[in-house]
Amino acid sequence: MGKGDMKLIWGSGSGPCWRAMIALEEKGFGDIEKKFISFSEKGHKGEDVMKKNPRGQVPTFSDGDIIVNESMAICLYLDAAYPNEGTKLIPTDAKDMAQVYQQAIEAHENLQMKIAIKCIYYQWRTKKEERNEETLNENLKAAREELEIWDKRVKQFAYGDKFTLVDAVLFPFVATVVRFGCDISSLPRLQAYYDNLKERQSIKNSWPPHWLEGELKDKILKDL
Amino acid sequence: MGKGDMKLIWGSGSGPCWRAMIALEEKGFGDIEKKFISFSEKGHKGEDVMKKNPRGQVPTFSDGDIIVNESMAICLYLDAAYPNEGTKLIPTDAKDMAQVYQQAIEAHENLQMKIAIKCIYYQWRTKKEERNEETLNENLKAAREELEIWDKRVKQFAYGDKFTLVDAVLFPFVATVVRFGCDISSLPRLQAYYDNLKERQSIKNSWPPHWLEGELKDKILKDL
Repeated sequence: MGKGDMKLIWGSGSGPCWRAMIALEEKGFGDIEKKFISFSEKGHKGEDVMKKNPRGQVPTFSDGDIIVNESMAICLYLDAAYPNEGTKLIPTDAKDMAQVYQQAIEAHENLQMKIAIKCIYYQWRTKKEERNEETLNENLKAAREELEIWDKRVKQFAYGDKFTLVDAVLFPFVATVVRFGCDISSLPRLQAYYDNLKERQSIKNSWPPHWLEGELKDKILKDL
Repeated sequence: MGKGDMKLIWGSGSGPCWRAMIALEEKGFGDIEKKFISFSEKGHKGEDVMKKNPRGQVPTFSDGDIIVNESMAICLYLDAAYPNEGTKLIPTDAKDMAQVYQQAIEAHENLQMKIAIKCIYYQWRTKKEERNEETLNENLKAAREELEIWDKRVKQFAYGDKFTLVDAVLFPFVATVVRFGCDISSLPRLQAYYDNLKERQSIKNSWPPHWLEGELKDKILKDL
C-alpha cells in the first residue's frame, strides 16, 4: 500500500466520486493513477469496476490489495491510514473530532436524501406527466430549509478554521445546487463559502471536467 | 467527558438508537444515564431533545459538552475517543480497518434505503389504496437481493473473527426483518449469524423493550 499502489476509477459529476477525489487531493494523493469512466456508456458496469466493486458503482478505489468503494469510507480510510500526510480530515482533539464526524455524516445523510434523491433524481427519473408537483414543491422546500441550516453554520470552512471532512462532503452538494440553477446569493454565508472554497487547489483540481464545458440547459433546481 | 458525563436519549425500535446502544454496550458504557422517549407521544420533538438536537431526532447523545447525534458518528466518536475501553469497533490493522469502514457504510447505505425506506416506511406511510404494488414488489426483491449479499459474507461475525462496527450496523437491520415477518431460514448463514449474535450480551442488553412484549400483528416483510 502507498501512493504508488493507489488507483481510483471515477466518473464526472458524481458527488461521491468528487468527495473521494477531494480527500485524495487534500491528503497529497491527487496524482495517483485514475481511470475515467463514462456513465452514459455504462462504464460503471464495466469489467474493471465489477471486479473490484460488484455493486457496479464508482468511486472504486484500491490501495494495493485494499479495496474501499464507499466514498465516506474512502475518506475515513485515507485519513486513518495516512495520518501524517497532507490535510488532517478528522481532527485529533476529541471535541473537534466529534463535531467533524457528526457534521460530515449529518451533511451526507440530509443533503443526499433532500437534494440528490428527492429533488434531482426525482426529476431525472420521473416522467414529467407522472410527477406529483405538490410532492416536488414540498421536496424543494425541505431542500431549501436544509441549505439554510448550513448557511447558519459555515464560515471560511464548514467547521472550525481548517479544511475537514465536513468540507469534502458539503462542498460538492453546494456546487451541485449552483450547477443546477439554484441562486444561493440569498444564503450569503453559503455563497461566500462556495466562492472561497471553489478557489482551493483540491477543489479546482477535482472539478467535474464536463461542468467546465458549459452550463446546464435544464436548471432543475432554479426554484429551490 | 467520560462515562459519568455521558447521556443518551433514545426510543424503542429505532435502528439508529439500537446501533448507538450496541456501541455503548460494547465500549463498556451500557450503564450510562439514559432517557427513554416515546415516538407515539412525539418525545423526539420534546424540549430536552431539541435543545441538544434541533433536528428533533434520536439518538441524542452527549459526553459532557460534546454532543453527537448521528448514530454512525456516535460509534466512530466512541471508538476514537475511548480507544482502550471495551471492544475495538474499528480495527487498527490498515486492511481490516479499511474493510470495516467499507462494510459498515455499505451496510448502512444499502440496508437503510432498500429495507427501511423502500419497504418498511413505504408501507407505513403510503395508504393501501395509493400503493403501487409493482413498485413494492420490485423493492421487496431488491431488499431480498441485498440480504443475499450479506448472507454470502457473514460468519460468526459480519467481518473477520471479532465483533466490529459492521455488526453494530448490520445486526439491527437483520433483527428488524425478522421482527417484520421475513423468514431468513432460506439465508442459512444470515440465520446462523442472527441466532449467534442475538445471544451476545450487548445485543440482549439493548434489545428494543417493546419487542419483548409480543409479536407484530402486521408482518409487512413476510414476502421478502
